[in-house]
Amino acid sequence: MNKITAATAANLIDRAEHKARDLGVNVCIAVTDGGAHLLAFKRMDGAFTGSVDVAIGKARTCSLFPVPSGDFGSLIRNEQLTGMELSNHGLVGFAGGLPIRQNDCLIGSVGISGATAEQDAEIADYAVQEFAL
Amino acid sequence: MNKITAATAANLIDRAEHKARDLGVNVCIAVTDGGAHLLAFKRMDGAFTGSVDVAIGKARTCSLFPVPSGDFGSLIRNEQLTGMELSNHGLVGFAGGLPIRQNDCLIGSVGISGATAEQDAEIADYAVQEFAL
Amino acid sequence: MNKITAATAANLIDRAEHKARDLGVNVCIAVTDGGAHLLAFKRMDGAFTGSVDVAIGKARTCSLFPVPSGDFGSLIRNEQLTGMELSNHGLVGFAGGLPIRQNDCLIGSVGISGATAEQDAEIADYAVQEFAL
Amino acid sequence: MNKITAATAANLIDRAEHKARDLGVNVCIAVTDGGAHLLAFKRMDGAFTGSVDVAIGKARTCSLFPVPSGDFGSLIRNEQLTGMELSNHGLVGFAGGLPIRQNDCLIGSVGISGATAEQDAEIADYAVQEFAL
Repeated sequence: MNKITAATAANLIDRAEHKARDLGVNVCIAVTDGGAHLLAFKRMDGAFTGSVDVAIGKARTCSLFPVPSGDFGSLIRNEQLTGMELSNHGLVGFAGGLPIRQNDCLIGSVGISGATAEQDAEIADYAVQEFAL
Repeated sequence: MNKITAATAANLIDRAEHKARDLGVNVCIAVTDGGAHLLAFKRMDGAFTGSVDVAIGKARTCSLFPVPSGDFGSLIRNEQLTGMELSNHGLVGFAGGLPIRQNDCLIGSVGISGATAEQDAEIADYAVQEFAL
Repeated sequence: MNKITAATAANLIDRAEHKARDLGVNVCIAVTDGGAHLLAFKRMDGAFTGSVDVAIGKARTCSLFPVPSGDFGSLIRNEQLTGMELSNHGLVGFAGGLPIRQNDCLIGSVGISGATAEQDAEIADYAVQEFAL
Repeated sequence: MNKITAATAANLIDRAEHKARDLGVNVCIAVTDGGAHLLAFKRMDGAFTGSVDVAIGKARTCSLFPVPSGDFGSLIRNEQLTGMELSNHGLVGFAGGLPIRQNDCLIGSVGISGATAEQDAEIADYAVQEFAL
């Protein structure tokens, strides 16, 4: 497999939602392909309207710069990469986005938004877990 | 009910996908709420990458101007509403988007893109059918 | 091969430039990947400044909707797809852009702008010719 | 010479790529003219997709404000030039972009992105070296 199918994207969303329910939070969940284009999206009931764009932004960011979005944000701040987050029609530099790789190849990303950044990251971690096997 | 739940959005997407498979086409399916914000999205395997934005655009357009997106396009062209489609960060004025009402109240919209406009519209019609009851 | 390498992109640009010189015109030449992201670009001396964005737009359009950009434009006009060209941060619907496939898989696109649309298309045709073998 | 020819732009890209290979990094390389419009671009195999826009952004920034992009970023931060990086459709304020002058006249800029800002700057320095003679 060198790309995420619709079935895999649906599975990623199911896993993310399962974890969000465990944590008792309502989030938006986005899955992008390796070219940063949206594959699947779900807004859980009760999630903030504003989280829609942030979740998609986190997934897009990880497909464009394939590191966890929190690490990318740290890099922007620590290295004072002024204007970096304005590039590519807007990037998101805090936790909750994760790139997904198979055989060292980026195949897409997941982005979570709606809870704390730490919880968003925990949900993203859980969602992509099986891809790390 | 005065809004579309995540469960209803998922059902709309399932129905749209079912109809698309019947027609033998691969499409993008978007569901927005009454405020034109994304609720759920699915890109079927094989759908054009460019259809992502168009499907979301059709749903957004119908939540902003609650008529079928094809009728809205005819209005723009016939009434020479110059610049109308440039408003609201871009509107889509051709068939495949439908507003969803309950008790005469707009509760959201569905947008389909990837096949011909006629097929997109047929899929949207099928998806929202039970809401017309 | 399932993607265009930098070497292949450079070769596409060389071929396009060769044809442009044959025709006695100065153009901009863009090559995008399958996800519509820029791989390589060249502005020939004397090409219009405004053609930069158009050439990139033609290539992007063909990676998003994998048909020749002229055919896509005809579709937009004939089917009255109002607002279609406003989607995806702007599409270009006239001749000069061509998708590139290998084994029925889109691997990228080339976009030419600066001469007449017919000449732009002729240059694009020549550039991608060997991919049709 | 009061402008960068296509041949010179190609030479700048070759020099940048040569230095990048020396450093063992994969980057995007952009060359803009004195009016901040793209002249030439190359994405090396393996460079991040997101670096495309950043490399072009660094070159654009240096053609608009002809100082090294890292110095421009320091100025923005130190002088608290709120909103400066939001102007001009987005500027990039960290190292890797350099203006190119001849006879005290701005003739264009080079922008590098994909490695660390320090490496990007080293590559840009090497690329424009002969212009400093």
